[in-house]
Amino acid sequence: MQFVNRIILKIGYLQRIRIWSFSILPKSENLKSNTHTMASKPSIPKGTRDFSPAEVAKRQYIIQIIKSNFEKFGFQPIETPSFENSETLMGKYGEEGDRLIFKILNSGDYLAKANAAHLESKESTKLTSSISEKALRYDLTVPFARYVVQHQNEIEFPFKRYQIQPVWRADRPQKGRFREFFQCDADVVGSKSLWQEVELVQLYDAVFTDLGLSGVTIKINNRKILSGIAEVIGASDKLIDFTVALDKLDKIGEGGVKKEMMEKGIAAEAIAKVQPLFNFTGTIVEKIEKLSVLLSESEEGLKGVEELRFICDNVMKLGLNNAVLDLDVTLARGLNYYTGAIFEVAPPKSVSMGSIGGGGRYDDLTGIFGLKNMSGVGISFGLDRIYLVVEELNLFPETVSATSQALFINYGETEAFYGLQAIQKLRAAGIKVELYPDAVKVAKQFQHADKRRIPFAVIVGPDEMTSNTFLLKNLISGEQLSLNFESLKEALLGS
Amino acid sequence: MQFVNRIILKIGYLQRIRIWSFSILPKSENLKSNTHTMASKPSIPKGTRDFSPAEVAKRQYIIQIIKSNFEKFGFQPIETPSFENSETLMGKYGEEGDRLIFKILNSGDYLAKANAAHLESKESTKLTSSISEKALRYDLTVPFARYVVQHQNEIEFPFKRYQIQPVWRADRPQKGRFREFFQCDADVVGSKSLWQEVELVQLYDAVFTDLGLSGVTIKINNRKILSGIAEVIGASDKLIDFTVALDKLDKIGEGGVKKEMMEKGIAAEAIAKVQPLFNFTGTIVEKIEKLSVLLSESEEGLKGVEELRFICDNVMKLGLNNAVLDLDVTLARGLNYYTGAIFEVAPPKSVSMGSIGGGGRYDDLTGIFGLKNMSGVGISFGLDRIYLVVEELNLFPETVSATSQALFINYGETEAFYGLQAIQKLRAAGIKVELYPDAVKVAKQFQHADKRRIPFAVIVGPDEMTSNTFLLKNLISGEQLSLNFESLKEALLGS
Repeated sequence: MQFVNRIILKIGYLQRIRIWSFSILPKSENLKSNTHTMASKPSIPKGTRDFSPAEVAKRQYIIQIIKSNFEKFGFQPIETPSFENSETLMGKYGEEGDRLIFKILNSGDYLAKANAAHLESKESTKLTSSISEKALRYDLTVPFARYVVQHQNEIEFPFKRYQIQPVWRADRPQKGRFREFFQCDADVVGSKSLWQEVELVQLYDAVFTDLGLSGVTIKINNRKILSGIAEVIGASDKLIDFTVALDKLDKIGEGGVKKEMMEKGIAAEAIAKVQPLFNFTGTIVEKIEKLSVLLSESEEGLKGVEELRFICDNVMKLGLNNAVLDLDVTLARGLNYYTGAIFEVAPPKSVSMGSIGGGGRYDDLTGIFGLKNMSGVGISFGLDRIYLVVEELNLFPETVSATSQALFINYGETEAFYGLQAIQKLRAAGIKVELYPDAVKVAKQFQHADKRRIPFAVIVGPDEMTSNTFLLKNLISGEQLSLNFESLKEALLGS
Repeated sequence: MQFVNRIILKIGYLQRIRIWSFSILPKSENLKSNTHTMASKPSIPKGTRDFSPAEVAKRQYIIQIIKSNFEKFGFQPIETPSFENSETLMGKYGEEGDRLIFKILNSGDYLAKANAAHLESKESTKLTSSISEKALRYDLTVPFARYVVQHQNEIEFPFKRYQIQPVWRADRPQKGRFREFFQCDADVVGSKSLWQEVELVQLYDAVFTDLGLSGVTIKINNRKILSGIAEVIGASDKLIDFTVALDKLDKIGEGGVKKEMMEKGIAAEAIAKVQPLFNFTGTIVEKIEKLSVLLSESEEGLKGVEELRFICDNVMKLGLNNAVLDLDVTLARGLNYYTGAIFEVAPPKSVSMGSIGGGGRYDDLTGIFGLKNMSGVGISFGLDRIYLVVEELNLFPETVSATSQALFINYGETEAFYGLQAIQKLRAAGIKVELYPDAVKVAKQFQHADKRRIPFAVIVGPDEMTSNTFLLKNLISGEQLSLNFESLKEALLGS
């Protein structure tokens, strides 16, 4: 049969569907390449993952809950390409971000267009733009902004879009940090209405309620509050040191925090001005009152207080199912990005884990692509971390699995055909069911069902064929029932 | 507020969830980069696509049907990383394939490790392996083979897996050919049973039936038949010329085909030996009979006839819903890849379009990664083409849309709050509903519902608030009903 290897086929467009374009290398080359790959056990790039059927099923369970809530809240899905033109991404995430973006090498003779000077001087960073025109997306926000600007004439604003797609980052992989991971974003663009913020808090609550997660805390802050604090302490350039220190209040106490602040060069006078932040407890209403006093000299700060008041007030009047809303003035996230509300979601306190969601308001989402005055607000769900939390709290329903409900045992050609007639009708009724493909030893087939965690086996031997019945065996209890087809169907539908 | 731009934040791990890492470039740099990107209208790389909400909904409709049938047939999902180590992919698709694989530039100072000689001589192809270690997957079959070998100890064989993920090819884009597109594959590995082929034909039929597509033809052939024909005509190296010519029978007639064959150097004597192929009509049973006579001298050929007979016989006895099974001896596809059955699916004849699916049996799927004797068989669905066919035949259900069922008109803060109380309960009942975020002119809000194709508006003014009712307006018929909450919910649930 070797001769066939040398036959050259027309490789047509057809082949795009399922393709293993035949190799046109001489046979010796083929062998060499085979030997090469056989030598090392195959692996995947660091920071990436294979997902087994059980993992895919669990991930899909979470994604489905997020997706259905996005849609209940009026968000519509879009998808953007995995890679964008480099100029769309570069310069949008800072120098560090630029470094972490995966660049795609130009196809063909890419060196022909390479910048000769940079090639000569071996300056990798400078050379990149002349040998790479495309890059893998780094997040979903910049591609969304690009989408809005590019399609602005087809979009009906306000535009509520959601997007659930992978992103890639050349970060150093570590526990829980991957080079390929999914983002799940919902954003509204084209309206400054604070009702959006109210609804986004409800959306978080709805998703975590559906996941059975109690005790999630939705932290809220406002960039204008942070601006106001910076104004009040008269030390804008110290705001970050200030919030970092304040965040340690629980751990090192008021004295420790003040000491750290002074070490960072914040004047004692400035610290005194924001004394109420050191005792920033109480209900949200009380906290907002404290802020309105504290920031009474800052127009910007008071604007932030009003926004917070509207959002928190309405969220509380409408009520949350499971989540708790909390005002956290140390919450900053991507500070120069957000301009209004800032959100972050903390998992239940019983789980030791960072934030499982975040978001906020950005007044000028699309400005970077030339479309001004487009206010946006959005939130994101951290799929990988939510997965870990749901797993740790044992909240995945037992039914989350893509496995079949029953395995038909294969006793030989005649019995298999009889079984397939039933299988065909069961599948038409929506039941997941399969035939063991080979008529091997029955023990081996039962073992297969067991390892696959298939709950039922259906046995069809000569007796069953004669009596037109099926022996349904519950593989957990061991119970066996002889059933006609209709009863078999009912039993599997009800299982 | 400009000062905040200069504040440096701790960018923590938090930021991985929704990130716009602030820029640490000096402001002048920022402005320059903004000006640069503002200058040109943003676009996406050629051969890639943005999908609008309507398009995503339609694609998801098809994917959902494929997926649910994959699962009904006992296939389980896996997912593999978007990029693989280059050595996993290179050399698996021939020289042309290697060229079409997108390579990812190494991060950091990639030139430091670049091969100096290739850099000096500017040999792009040779340099690649020293500056790029990863590549985007080209199909789902090689990653699947890699997955099976890598995880062989965790996998329970026979392993029925499906995979629906994008793949990337640096092909020249043209109508219907993209650089990023989805493949939808189902494969079984670890069993030589021909029942798998029978079930895969049924699987095609089930999917196309659910899509409402009648008149699909599932073409089947067998690589061993092709080997047998090559043997019989005694001209193995002419097999491709032979099948290409034979394929034109409908167009140029028996005389034309024979003329072309002779021009290609196939002996008249050889052509005479396969005379029955020139009158290769009739039922599948008749065709199989003809083949068994024709190939009576070829052991390999007769093996192929037996396989075809088993598959076709059982498929026909079990019956297909909508699709037609046909034996096509000119069907070759990836010839040196498949070793048994070969499948290809043609759309209904009313649509002018290439194949919408394909697949086959490959006796040594995982050998390239060092795991021998793993027979595999699988099929693939061509999502993009199926989309075009379903669109052209107008078979997308009207309900396929991710739009909301009702838009609450916003008359101001008090009314909006009243509306949101109802919205909250409607969403809890699974209804997709939204509030127009701003209290702008009512005409504009109705226009918004219209453009978004939202079928109902809910009007809540002072009167409704007083009487605790909702005015539900059907935006197609114009009909208005004043309803209490329960009736509103019923109406929207039933719509």
